[in-house]
Amino acid sequence: MTSISIIGTGNMGRAIAAVAERGGHDVQQLAHSDSDVAATGDIVVLAVPHTAVREILEQRRESLAGKIVVDITNPLDFTTMDSLVVAPDSSKAVEIAAALPSSRVLKAFNTNFASTLAEGTVGPLRTTVLIAGDDDRAKAALSEVLTSGGLEAIDAGGLDRARELEAIGFLQISLAARDTLSWTAGFGVVV
Amino acid sequence: MTSISIIGTGNMGRAIAAVAERGGHDVQQLAHSDSDVAATGDIVVLAVPHTAVREILEQRRESLAGKIVVDITNPLDFTTMDSLVVAPDSSKAVEIAAALPSSRVLKAFNTNFASTLAEGTVGPLRTTVLIAGDDDRAKAALSEVLTSGGLEAIDAGGLDRARELEAIGFLQISLAARDTLSWTAGFGVVV
Repeated sequence: MTSISIIGTGNMGRAIAAVAERGGHDVQQLAHSDSDVAATGDIVVLAVPHTAVREILEQRRESLAGKIVVDITNPLDFTTMDSLVVAPDSSKAVEIAAALPSSRVLKAFNTNFASTLAEGTVGPLRTTVLIAGDDDRAKAALSEVLTSGGLEAIDAGGLDRARELEAIGFLQISLAARDTLSWTAGFGVVV
Repeated sequence: MTSISIIGTGNMGRAIAAVAERGGHDVQQLAHSDSDVAATGDIVVLAVPHTAVREILEQRRESLAGKIVVDITNPLDFTTMDSLVVAPDSSKAVEIAAALPSSRVLKAFNTNFASTLAEGTVGPLRTTVLIAGDDDRAKAALSEVLTSGGLEAIDAGGLDRARELEAIGFLQISLAARDTLSWTAGFGVVV
């Protein structure tokens, strides 16, 4: 059993919590505003919009040392939904890793719409979570949580690959925002 | 009926030709070395590796004016399979469009492995071709060829979105190159 803290109580945070609970793990769900409550999990998921990450890191930087920290964000310009706000040769996950040098940062969940995590399926496919990160044991720990909760997980490579995962997330959101895709569907993976 | 010239006789060129033929279109297939044979199609697909594009453009630039030109490349560093060789804020398709200002350049097919074009399916899903480009009529013309040939087609946005399509293609190839995905599978789209 793995202990997981999820910061964020929106659609994504609730869906990720439900997956971990299905897998029998110990889940602590915290609101962004619970800044005085310690995140006790070995894995801490930052299930907040990209614009909220800076404040959470300022509040919790020291307490996240040694932990697996999962960035789920899609760093879009929410006013236009038509561009990313990170440098083109970087990613939000790489920025977070730079801000948390004592944590093991993973990118995950940003290519999955919340309902596909909650349902466990994307159309006829089981939902697959793509995970990027430089720490293989951290990726394996998150993968085990997800597969025990009924999802598929794929190691997408090192943290540099977060750039491609953010590109996928951006494209998927841009297609859903203009009704080309449904928010309950999106990209799936056939292995 | 649309006339299509496909330059390139590899797996991708042959698979794209077969789709167009299934749709009842007029297909001309040319080898890269057929540089003295005019490409007669209204749509010209550059079904060659990214490293061959420059020579083809030098040979055919003037004759491609007015045509729809389709870039299918994944501009990977083939020695490492671990990075793209285009500028991070650009794409091969945008580079080609700059070199062919009188053509209507589209990005398509680079997120599809050849066998999924040939079979028409990715696992349980119908194969979906993501198309980016700035000319809506050009995208509609290519989409019609693909849907008449049994595939799905999605307008992925303007040519700037080729950057995200190349990110998807890159990630998909990197996963297949280390056996995380099969070359007969990959990303699918559920609308």
